[in-house]
Amino acid sequence: MTELEQVSANRSFGGVQGVYKHASAATGTDMTFSVYVPPHEAGAKLPVVWYLSGLTCTHANVTEKGEFRRLCSELGLIFVAPDTSPRGPDVPDDPDGAYDFGLGAGFYVDATQAPFHRHYRMWTYLTDELPAIVAQHFPADMARQSIMGHSMGGHGALTIALRHPERFRAVSAFAPIVAPSQVPWGEKALTGYLGPDRAAWRRHDAVALIEDGARVPAMLVDQGSGDSFLEKELRPQLLREACDAAGIDLTLNLRDGYDHSYYFIATFMDDHLRWHAARLGLASFDEALE
Amino acid sequence: MTELEQVSANRSFGGVQGVYKHASAATGTDMTFSVYVPPHEAGAKLPVVWYLSGLTCTHANVTEKGEFRRLCSELGLIFVAPDTSPRGPDVPDDPDGAYDFGLGAGFYVDATQAPFHRHYRMWTYLTDELPAIVAQHFPADMARQSIMGHSMGGHGALTIALRHPERFRAVSAFAPIVAPSQVPWGEKALTGYLGPDRAAWRRHDAVALIEDGARVPAMLVDQGSGDSFLEKELRPQLLREACDAAGIDLTLNLRDGYDHSYYFIATFMDDHLRWHAARLGLASFDEALE
Repeated sequence: MTELEQVSANRSFGGVQGVYKHASAATGTDMTFSVYVPPHEAGAKLPVVWYLSGLTCTHANVTEKGEFRRLCSELGLIFVAPDTSPRGPDVPDDPDGAYDFGLGAGFYVDATQAPFHRHYRMWTYLTDELPAIVAQHFPADMARQSIMGHSMGGHGALTIALRHPERFRAVSAFAPIVAPSQVPWGEKALTGYLGPDRAAWRRHDAVALIEDGARVPAMLVDQGSGDSFLEKELRPQLLREACDAAGIDLTLNLRDGYDHSYYFIATFMDDHLRWHAARLGLASFDEALE
Repeated sequence: MTELEQVSANRSFGGVQGVYKHASAATGTDMTFSVYVPPHEAGAKLPVVWYLSGLTCTHANVTEKGEFRRLCSELGLIFVAPDTSPRGPDVPDDPDGAYDFGLGAGFYVDATQAPFHRHYRMWTYLTDELPAIVAQHFPADMARQSIMGHSMGGHGALTIALRHPERFRAVSAFAPIVAPSQVPWGEKALTGYLGPDRAAWRRHDAVALIEDGARVPAMLVDQGSGDSFLEKELRPQLLREACDAAGIDLTLNLRDGYDHSYYFIATFMDDHLRWHAARLGLASFDEALE
């Protein structure tokens, strides 16, 4: 059983917001993540919502600013927020210290390129190691999982859900990077972590995965019209086109005047949690599916 | 008209979360504060809720972690969050750099003691200068104001409301310092800002103000039972006794296992906003008064 160090625990909305640290076999570093466990009856197993964060973030951003606990408490959802990269004295960063590669910018891939391949293994960490830890240490019903994310974390959520349609009953994103192969953030990251062969990028690009046959029944995406990254980095119309061609039921909401910040995310967090709850089989939210 | 610099503005829950800076005549420094303006019809004037923060905080803590915007948007409340002290290169701090005096710890008084008397004038700033700025620059109905605060800011909210019963229709607090004259945080701060004569402290001590005849119709206080400052610094039973003796209708909720953090505050923010809304004459919340 993986040892877990409790960094902090705060009662909130009747449940417990915890932060935990553990030695990760996947990344070869210590990793920190947060889990909100809502109030529940002893012995109950609760559905799990994963939230993947964006560039520069740690677990702390959504934990402090995401405004998810009130509704997770009401709905009975466990909310897990991992970090965005390995960290530590031995972990290489962007050679220029840029915010969009290296620390805080793991892009949810297993790097193949030196010197990043040793520690930057966020794909394996998130799809293999951390789910086992969550299942071991929390009252989690791993048969009922869903996933969401923001920006780079929206990219992570979409790609992980598209490659694990049997695992996640719902996927949604706030201002996601939908086609990293076609935008500067993604081209830099995928080159740096996976090398110049673009064929290797397609398994980490939501639009390319859909083009190559990956399917989920439905997606929910919210995007602010005042997001300064909209046209250059996010380009949701590429996801619209891919989903339309593939027959994926994409709900894409363009939100007038909203930007890329947590003030935007918090505004629409309730909508996303209700979307997930309905698909996670929470009885009182079945009507949302009608 | 006081000039106001907009530091940031983010759309959130249909309204705008702004941060503003201005040169303060009261403190002789620049001062920063945040205002959330909910969606409203053109020309409408909205009630104003003041939130005073605790030790070490700026406007940013509650702005980022307070989870007040969803309900302020629904209820139509302007939410104002000032800083907790003057700041700047000329502003003296605690001689030992302690967190509980000086910067981030203005204690909502006008200091009379050198070297603090020049800039530490938070009482005048909050009761005189900033209300005029809010009235000038925002769609605020200054005939409908209420006030709340946390810890040191709960002290500020209670004392300001007790001395301005005509101005504030409601007052509430999260884990307030109710009797600074009787606890270490308060004794240090009031000595440092007001001098050793304890008679001068009574106008900045909620329990003493009530003992001396100040009245408000009702108060709402939430206090976590797991708050590490409960017995030494907060001592809500002193407020209980003073209110009972004075005939003030105090609702004092002891919340099992909650601590002193924003995880606690956010949990009960909705309750406090509904309490305020009912007393600010928002029609749909009149039932809360019954």
